[in-house]
Amino acid sequence: MTPRVHETTVGVVGGGQLGRMLGEAASPLGLELLVSDPTPDAPAAPSVSDQVVGAFDDEATIRTLAERADYLTFEIELADPAALERVHEETGTPVHPHPETLRLIQDKLVQKRALADAGIPVPAFRPVDSLAELNAALAEFGYPAMLKARQGGYDGRGNVLIESPEDVEDAFAAIAGPALLEEFVPYDRELAVMACQGDDEQDTFPVTETIHEEEILRTTVSPARADDRVRERAREVATDVLDVLSGRGVFGVELFEADGKILFNEVAPRPHNSGHWTIEGCYTSQFEQHLRAVVGLPLGSTERRAPTASKNLLGDVDTRQPAQLSGMPAALQTDRLSMHWYGKHEVYPLRKMGHVTLVGDNGADPTTLLSEIQTAAELLTFRSTE
Amino acid sequence: MTPRVHETTVGVVGGGQLGRMLGEAASPLGLELLVSDPTPDAPAAPSVSDQVVGAFDDEATIRTLAERADYLTFEIELADPAALERVHEETGTPVHPHPETLRLIQDKLVQKRALADAGIPVPAFRPVDSLAELNAALAEFGYPAMLKARQGGYDGRGNVLIESPEDVEDAFAAIAGPALLEEFVPYDRELAVMACQGDDEQDTFPVTETIHEEEILRTTVSPARADDRVRERAREVATDVLDVLSGRGVFGVELFEADGKILFNEVAPRPHNSGHWTIEGCYTSQFEQHLRAVVGLPLGSTERRAPTASKNLLGDVDTRQPAQLSGMPAALQTDRLSMHWYGKHEVYPLRKMGHVTLVGDNGADPTTLLSEIQTAAELLTFRSTE
Repeated sequence: MTPRVHETTVGVVGGGQLGRMLGEAASPLGLELLVSDPTPDAPAAPSVSDQVVGAFDDEATIRTLAERADYLTFEIELADPAALERVHEETGTPVHPHPETLRLIQDKLVQKRALADAGIPVPAFRPVDSLAELNAALAEFGYPAMLKARQGGYDGRGNVLIESPEDVEDAFAAIAGPALLEEFVPYDRELAVMACQGDDEQDTFPVTETIHEEEILRTTVSPARADDRVRERAREVATDVLDVLSGRGVFGVELFEADGKILFNEVAPRPHNSGHWTIEGCYTSQFEQHLRAVVGLPLGSTERRAPTASKNLLGDVDTRQPAQLSGMPAALQTDRLSMHWYGKHEVYPLRKMGHVTLVGDNGADPTTLLSEIQTAAELLTFRSTE
Repeated sequence: MTPRVHETTVGVVGGGQLGRMLGEAASPLGLELLVSDPTPDAPAAPSVSDQVVGAFDDEATIRTLAERADYLTFEIELADPAALERVHEETGTPVHPHPETLRLIQDKLVQKRALADAGIPVPAFRPVDSLAELNAALAEFGYPAMLKARQGGYDGRGNVLIESPEDVEDAFAAIAGPALLEEFVPYDRELAVMACQGDDEQDTFPVTETIHEEEILRTTVSPARADDRVRERAREVATDVLDVLSGRGVFGVELFEADGKILFNEVAPRPHNSGHWTIEGCYTSQFEQHLRAVVGLPLGSTERRAPTASKNLLGDVDTRQPAQLSGMPAALQTDRLSMHWYGKHEVYPLRKMGHVTLVGDNGADPTTLLSEIQTAAELLTFRSTE
């Protein structure tokens, strides 16, 4: 019997903006989405069928999701792989990507070792559990070098750049736990590829150029301003990364381009900020693609429709406060600009509150697109405009 | 102070597929949608913030919507203009389009007179309240001619083609109420234009060719296979229609192309089946455009991104039964095909259950696109495939 998509429920651990955009993609497919999130009325709540309130790693919450859903997935790495595995064994509900993939990715040292072992080019790294080990690794790599917490890093939290011997003790104290030191890659550009693992098929979306400040993604553009050979190599590396992971879904593969070569940085086992542009920029969005993969539908086309830029709307405030975005009527005067609001009631400095996307003509110049989206985004602010 | 879109709630009378797709468009904009529908768990329910259960014309239901919303609109002509007006006066909640527009459109005779008076080309018509009046009008127009109920027609219901004198009595009995007789237009093609009335601005989406069978829309393609001059004239007529109506929103203007000329057929004061292709085919969908218009945001670009066809998924069953769509995994193998499921739990003959959209390359031939979407849609059925 052919599976009937419109009787299918997907449980998602996490109800943030990724859950919200998964909900927006689920509705046209006829999939019901059920999210879990510790915060009642989470960002995803208005766009999904229901929210279960509970911590990301709470086993009872995950069990409730599993009992009500035909498939389980997650949109946040804080989901607990052991709990997902136990719930899967108890309920039989398939989990995609595989919890083992989540476990591998949660520990940056384990992640990097697995990928290096598979022959994927990664920057040199050393485990660092003590100040002595840190100093030994720094002696080997020189300055600057990047100290990364093995667990729980996110949007630059858990990463400290060590620029000189004076930084060492503070950096070690800031990480406060098991870490790895990574050689600093003097990259020319950061790139990202959304890689898709379907049921017996793989694909990659076109390469995205990602522009970070203070280690938080600000802006993306696709095509990336890299040459064809580099872009092709980026997709190759992303496909190789898929082979190390198990279970279906989309994976955000972050890369460095340095001296014409591609080095792996990290991978997220879920839709990723660097792929938001696919909503307007591709025939299939990363969110629809993730859902197709999780429920075992064929993957959609990953072809890019046109050059596309996106820009995050980050909290440009000094303190936590009720979210009041000004300037949307002005910004929406920009032809081909799309708004994506994440439904967060409070804003704080650098919080991801939404993003905007701008689609160019075929053959549009990425640099021009970036400048145009910058102009539109400057009209939007959470600061008081009275 | 700049209006803050993300604190805005729109109340929608009607929670069918149009409400559902309005909900899908509202979420990225940060608008909250609240629909009313007599059927609990209406099609729109999963994609909107909340549903009020109540009849479309129930004043208490409309008042509840108005009290909870910043703006009111409707996605079904069965909304009651008098109730909308009273609720507007009581609560101050703006209603778009204006209830007067709904009243004008609900009565096909009033609609046609208003448009004819404004100089819009319409087929000849005569009011018909008795068999004698019907026979007199038929003597004038000859056969065939179209008898239309003044009120309540929808998807061909309320329209009867009179092909010969033998049909006259049955047709009059079938309509069973005030009617109009319209001369039959030997059209070459049916066209539709989604016309947009914003706050002090107007626009039209590119012309759609609409293909009906048994007076139910089956397939659309844009660009329409009409020459440039005809397409331009169709947009002109649609813009003229806007000037007869009041209040903001999108309006589905249905037209005939006959002998190179454009004749007005009818107008719907809401997003329309003939505009579903804009979700993938344009930079702004008709649903986003309607919401932008209702809340007074600037209209989005109406530019077409690429040639696009859409095809309704109609109930291909003999009796009312639980909806079980087979073939989606196979259909979704088609690159650039998008599914839009309406969330209806039961299917009956010719019920609109969803639609699929296929986007072509720039310059794609509309006839080829129609044949490709037909091939994909044939994989989808509500009949048992056991």
